[in-house]
Amino acid sequence: MQRSVWGWGYEGVEVPQLEKTRQMLETIFPKPTFRLPKPNVELWKSSLRKPRFPEPKIGTCEVSHDPKERMMHSFGKSFRDIARGVLGQYGNVVDYVAFPTSEVQVQEVLEWGEKMAQDGTPVDLIPFGGGSSVVGGVEPLIDSKRVVSIDLSRMDKIISVNLTDMTAQLQTGIFGPALLRGLTEYDKITLRHLPQSLSFSTLGGWLATRSGGHYASNKTYIDDFVVNMTIVTSKGIVKTSNLPASGAGPVADKIWLGSEGTLGIITECTVRVQKEPTFKCSSIVTFDSWDNGVNATRLISQSGLYPTQCRLMQGMEAIGYGLIQDFVEACLVLGFESATIDGLEERFMQPCLDICLENQGTILKTPKKDESATDTFRNSFITAPYLRDHLIMDGYIMETFETACSWSNFPKLDEAVRAAVASLGKPVMLTVRFTHVYPDGPAPYYTLTTQASSPTSLVSDWDALKQVVSDALIANGGTITHHHAVGKDHAQWFVKEKDPIWIAMLVNLKGFLDPQGMLNRGTLLPSKLLKDFKSISSKI
Amino acid sequence: MQRSVWGWGYEGVEVPQLEKTRQMLETIFPKPTFRLPKPNVELWKSSLRKPRFPEPKIGTCEVSHDPKERMMHSFGKSFRDIARGVLGQYGNVVDYVAFPTSEVQVQEVLEWGEKMAQDGTPVDLIPFGGGSSVVGGVEPLIDSKRVVSIDLSRMDKIISVNLTDMTAQLQTGIFGPALLRGLTEYDKITLRHLPQSLSFSTLGGWLATRSGGHYASNKTYIDDFVVNMTIVTSKGIVKTSNLPASGAGPVADKIWLGSEGTLGIITECTVRVQKEPTFKCSSIVTFDSWDNGVNATRLISQSGLYPTQCRLMQGMEAIGYGLIQDFVEACLVLGFESATIDGLEERFMQPCLDICLENQGTILKTPKKDESATDTFRNSFITAPYLRDHLIMDGYIMETFETACSWSNFPKLDEAVRAAVASLGKPVMLTVRFTHVYPDGPAPYYTLTTQASSPTSLVSDWDALKQVVSDALIANGGTITHHHAVGKDHAQWFVKEKDPIWIAMLVNLKGFLDPQGMLNRGTLLPSKLLKDFKSISSKI
Repeated sequence: MQRSVWGWGYEGVEVPQLEKTRQMLETIFPKPTFRLPKPNVELWKSSLRKPRFPEPKIGTCEVSHDPKERMMHSFGKSFRDIARGVLGQYGNVVDYVAFPTSEVQVQEVLEWGEKMAQDGTPVDLIPFGGGSSVVGGVEPLIDSKRVVSIDLSRMDKIISVNLTDMTAQLQTGIFGPALLRGLTEYDKITLRHLPQSLSFSTLGGWLATRSGGHYASNKTYIDDFVVNMTIVTSKGIVKTSNLPASGAGPVADKIWLGSEGTLGIITECTVRVQKEPTFKCSSIVTFDSWDNGVNATRLISQSGLYPTQCRLMQGMEAIGYGLIQDFVEACLVLGFESATIDGLEERFMQPCLDICLENQGTILKTPKKDESATDTFRNSFITAPYLRDHLIMDGYIMETFETACSWSNFPKLDEAVRAAVASLGKPVMLTVRFTHVYPDGPAPYYTLTTQASSPTSLVSDWDALKQVVSDALIANGGTITHHHAVGKDHAQWFVKEKDPIWIAMLVNLKGFLDPQGMLNRGTLLPSKLLKDFKSISSKI
Repeated sequence: MQRSVWGWGYEGVEVPQLEKTRQMLETIFPKPTFRLPKPNVELWKSSLRKPRFPEPKIGTCEVSHDPKERMMHSFGKSFRDIARGVLGQYGNVVDYVAFPTSEVQVQEVLEWGEKMAQDGTPVDLIPFGGGSSVVGGVEPLIDSKRVVSIDLSRMDKIISVNLTDMTAQLQTGIFGPALLRGLTEYDKITLRHLPQSLSFSTLGGWLATRSGGHYASNKTYIDDFVVNMTIVTSKGIVKTSNLPASGAGPVADKIWLGSEGTLGIITECTVRVQKEPTFKCSSIVTFDSWDNGVNATRLISQSGLYPTQCRLMQGMEAIGYGLIQDFVEACLVLGFESATIDGLEERFMQPCLDICLENQGTILKTPKKDESATDTFRNSFITAPYLRDHLIMDGYIMETFETACSWSNFPKLDEAVRAAVASLGKPVMLTVRFTHVYPDGPAPYYTLTTQASSPTSLVSDWDALKQVVSDALIANGGTITHHHAVGKDHAQWFVKEKDPIWIAMLVNLKGFLDPQGMLNRGTLLPSKLLKDFKSISSKI
């Protein structure tokens, strides 16, 4: 199958829930007033802006000027990216795509970039994994003059596996499916990290953005699975400690996690692997009161039981995901799994269900030795981005906002999000679920659907929605992102969320590691801050 | 009770196991040839070096020149510290001790330090929690000209507790016992972080050194309990995010953890608390082969069961701790506890015991609804430092080395440690236990006992031991410290263990946050590196 140039995933994928969703939306919104035609990719390819500088010779590294490659490397897969793809707004494409196959070639690209800057012709270099960013993480800034995307997908080997330590040494350009397949074939082991983007994202992307994974509690962040990393920087190649733990100095030799390609390029990583689970069990509990559902979820998250699934959602979402038929206020999907321990129903699930019963829950699906409830959820979840691609053409804007806050702050934050959405003064369908739970707070995940007034306002209407909700999150003690990264889209809120001294420390580290400021400029740290760096650094 | 000036803990504490230990040691070592007299603290106080500069006026902050305070703030509690205390080697004492009671006063101390540097009379400022450092973390460098110790123990309040989020906001100068007592009295909650130093160390010390805690698996590091922190730096007051989790940028706004007072002073922290456990269960398993014990421990650590205790030790140690009577090759203490879930024996312990049985273990103590096995261990463990104080006077050198390595690397590392000890060419009693276990590796903890040839060689013999073992750890892929910090004693190995670019990044951050280099100079980063900073920073 061919990857779609403008949309999510592969071309021509069927979305079974499409018609049902359209009908449901028409019960809420006015009938769409327009439908956009299928994107004319061939036309846009033929009229694409030519590269703005001669094709560079970068050591032995392959460099491409192919229009399709350049288009595919210029956008991620956010709503805005898909909308612009549908509308053919490929005005600001990258000039070239480099395909390094080794650390040496990655170094050659960085050295070439340094030389270009020294020659007075600075370039922007944008590391690219699977390109599934939904926050403008792989897109050039509008003021960029020369841009090369660095596609890491040819560095995709499983280098070694150690079944005693249960670790695997990997090149980071490997895509999710190849990684899973390779580990399964090796000896029925798994990374047990399944982001929604799994099929179209790479290990390197997960590391660079601190991907949150699919599981609800305890070890779920990609951070939790990292033993060590190799990072190519302008200062040289860094190798972090290869240790299960160390109390020697700050833990931040993992500062590369979440650095979003702004400090260096992560080329290799040793991860913790696990035996594939053989024992599974799942259950569904409903609540007549949302607050009771929240309380039960909180108490489970504070119990030390660590369910693999603990996903509380509003009834509307649960129906949409095919988990329940009839409306309830709250629906909690619970799951446990293990590679070694049988009897999960009695050992782990029963104490969770007891907590639910104490909070007026109704056990809709008694615990079964399977994961049918969690599977049902996951299957719908995985095809959701395809659904969005189709509905954009009908003028629907669908966006998700993820955050995290303390349990006691959640009601206030939730109210603020709802008020912000109401302030838009137009119909918006808004639902929430908790994707992850921590003892001190949940990670609420909001799904919003609304309609654009015209094809040309798709992006500006989305911008307005993004602005009011993000402002509300930051003003009410949420994080601007929980596992979707910051990119260029969230940079303005990132610097508001974090302490200014911490931001200055990051600017400082970037100035040290990337003195030319060429690595993914404008991502994480607004580009204006980096311009100020020279005046900051001269004072230290 | 009075705190001992030179020794561990309180003056005059009885050590029940002292005579038995002496007798045991005399079966291994020649009878001691000398016994040092009880330290003459009054004499040393009266002959102490006078402060080297006039008593400073630092805002409203109390400053003391009291000789006893100055002595107590000049050493930690390492073997070398105790030995020097016994021998009266108080040559390099701090000049003053400041006792701030608020963030404002901490700021005043830093501002005063900045001014002193600007006036050409630079000072060294050493943050001081409980002073239980065993790595030279609170001691002035020998080339210091003016030193003020900053004692944080008057900032010791429990500010607030939130029972919904299960968090507590604390001032960091609070000592372990006051913290535990305060939380218990509040509502039977606990931090569940019990370092060996608990009675004589503060929350701030645990944070600054990344204390490892007492529990064996999953959440045990102080890091795991931190929600947010307030840090006073020369650049201003920093507040880290008050969130259960955030994927926005690198996680390193916790870079303050493990910074050992070199970047700023941690004054406040919100921690995750838990209900005090009401259900407990413990068990002891013995193995006729050390390797079988290691295998069983490894498989338990990879099972996802997360025992609170999972402490494998050599038979000699287990006898010493009163856990077993007869020698075996390996002894494994297992424990589980919970505040909410009953039936731990069947739910959690049994699968662990099954793993032990599959690895030829013998269940010595069947699981009981108590924690007698883990209590027995802990009680001996807590009094061990007092024992050391007495035996030093008989010329015994007792030292512990903690490290962490991968499971597959452990045999090589262990062999290297044994070879290093043998290279000293004198009788050394050497035992090992695992204090913590991770899926990818254990944290081996070596206890060594040997004899000094004369009173004057106590410190130099200890130095030689420290050198060969630490060199062996670093050369064989271990970490120089797991939860004992780096201090000044380990700085030479710290820079060998970590990647040079990471070290340069830390130097860079220190240069930014502490441009005068006055905060705990020589701790973590060798002072020579900091001298080089100006030349490094001028290049960035």
